[in-house]
Amino acid sequence: MVSDEGDGVKATLAGLGEFAVIDRLVRDREQPPVVMLGPGDDAAVVLTPDGRTVVSTDMLVEGRHFRLDWSTPRDVGRKAIAQNAADVEAMGATPTAFVVAFGAPGHTSGDDVLALSDGMWEEASRFGAGIVGGDLVAAPQWVISVTVLGDLAGRDPVRLDGARPGDSVAVVGDLGRSAAGYSLLRNAIRDHDELRRSHLTPEVRYGQGRVAADAGATAMTDVSDGLVADLGHIADASGVGIDVARAALAADHDALGEAAAATEQDAWAWVLGGGEDHALVATFPGALPDGWRHIGVVVDGPARVLVDGTPWRGNPGWQSF
Amino acid sequence: MVSDEGDGVKATLAGLGEFAVIDRLVRDREQPPVVMLGPGDDAAVVLTPDGRTVVSTDMLVEGRHFRLDWSTPRDVGRKAIAQNAADVEAMGATPTAFVVAFGAPGHTSGDDVLALSDGMWEEASRFGAGIVGGDLVAAPQWVISVTVLGDLAGRDPVRLDGARPGDSVAVVGDLGRSAAGYSLLRNAIRDHDELRRSHLTPEVRYGQGRVAADAGATAMTDVSDGLVADLGHIADASGVGIDVARAALAADHDALGEAAAATEQDAWAWVLGGGEDHALVATFPGALPDGWRHIGVVVDGPARVLVDGTPWRGNPGWQSF
Repeated sequence: MVSDEGDGVKATLAGLGEFAVIDRLVRDREQPPVVMLGPGDDAAVVLTPDGRTVVSTDMLVEGRHFRLDWSTPRDVGRKAIAQNAADVEAMGATPTAFVVAFGAPGHTSGDDVLALSDGMWEEASRFGAGIVGGDLVAAPQWVISVTVLGDLAGRDPVRLDGARPGDSVAVVGDLGRSAAGYSLLRNAIRDHDELRRSHLTPEVRYGQGRVAADAGATAMTDVSDGLVADLGHIADASGVGIDVARAALAADHDALGEAAAATEQDAWAWVLGGGEDHALVATFPGALPDGWRHIGVVVDGPARVLVDGTPWRGNPGWQSF
Repeated sequence: MVSDEGDGVKATLAGLGEFAVIDRLVRDREQPPVVMLGPGDDAAVVLTPDGRTVVSTDMLVEGRHFRLDWSTPRDVGRKAIAQNAADVEAMGATPTAFVVAFGAPGHTSGDDVLALSDGMWEEASRFGAGIVGGDLVAAPQWVISVTVLGDLAGRDPVRLDGARPGDSVAVVGDLGRSAAGYSLLRNAIRDHDELRRSHLTPEVRYGQGRVAADAGATAMTDVSDGLVADLGHIADASGVGIDVARAALAADHDALGEAAAATEQDAWAWVLGGGEDHALVATFPGALPDGWRHIGVVVDGPARVLVDGTPWRGNPGWQSF
């Protein structure tokens, strides 16, 4: 799919072999200063001067989490890094290093694997991180497993269980755009290119996790499964209710109106139930940081999420099975 | 396959759903003291008082790296942890924490997933590590991706590139047993149960990586692809020749004689070319640590591996494609 003239890997994984492909993938990559030892040894060594390391992992399976007729390999690489980085942001930390395990059929072109890797590096370079190691194996379809390490830089991690009644609930980033883009792609509607892009490569607000932690966020997560579903994780862990106001989300809803009409979908289902934009949502006892939007309040338990004071009957969010 | 009476997960992943299965997998697991925050949040937090973190990842694909008609889910879990831990041992470090991404079909039984997890915990507990996070997704076949973190405890990492002419080459652990077991399984030969076990769950000599580092090892790796192939990585990185003596490996060879006869294979091909036992092989300028066996010497370049002074013509070792 992607050509890399003059220096590209022109053949398949089976033809080139594991080690030749890996050599090409790691060549000319500039590792950040945090990387003491990069790819090529039994393991990498990453500096963790804080004395703690944040770690999270996500697996993406072809046909389940992405489609190679919708996404370029570069898109898939960007998305794989973005969704893992968002998990570290959601702790109030900064992603510093990734390891990537990649399974693919032997007939996969080396160019496509290089484009996947280029997309990963492109996304990681947006926040100064490196891809420090990996594994390349044969599999019946593409499977990408990313693990991210993150640095708290002396901060306490912002967990799910710290929300308290009276806190404000606020969000930074897109809501519903990825779900809208998915619906457009499913319906083969060629308009609204930016929404389709939002599904293929989410725009994570890098650095805002750290901003939220510094502003005293009591709980935080990223919207990967859906706003109501992910706020439910905070509500459950904190033993609180969370009441979201539709009026505060009107702009998100209205921006999706044309796409909703074109696909005969409900834009509220996308805003409240659509995941994968990886917006950050957090609870704050005091003033909100710049750029964060107030969308609701934390109330006394029981643990549940309300929309305008009543339970929401829509899509409860992504489930793996 | 595995029953867990009274408290087991009795249905399938599709029937139970992602979150119910994860709840069951993480319940009652005792995390080691190094784990500041375990599963259940956006990311885990692991203590890394050394200020550096060793990190490595490996992916295992059903039908390629394991077969569920040969291995129990518990075997697969043990092997997945063992082979990742061996990569950390090979740096002279101690594995402390793992994250695991697991893909499987919706019809997979929850009991099997629990048994996989039990096997992982069983193996990790042998060296005091914990499984601190993960991901559970739908996939057409089992795919297990493990990332391991390790602690250098103030030591320099033992890399591939430090071997010098005059160093001794030494090994600790099994050679050829996994390959012999694989051949027995392939030929449906029911004798030599211990060799078949060696293929299904390798016996890594935990702690010996640290011992080698303390003894001044100049280079080290684990035998995952095959002895000659993996020594080739040290030879290439260090720019040296490595000469292995068959006489020093006679006991390894002879122990496999009956299995070799039964399968009409060459036991030398297993000892020199068989991987997956995850023995540790290292180069030492001085005395060998207890339990390590001298098997050869480092000589001047060019970078190559010799057996009794001549290039080896056998199986060059595992390649992914």
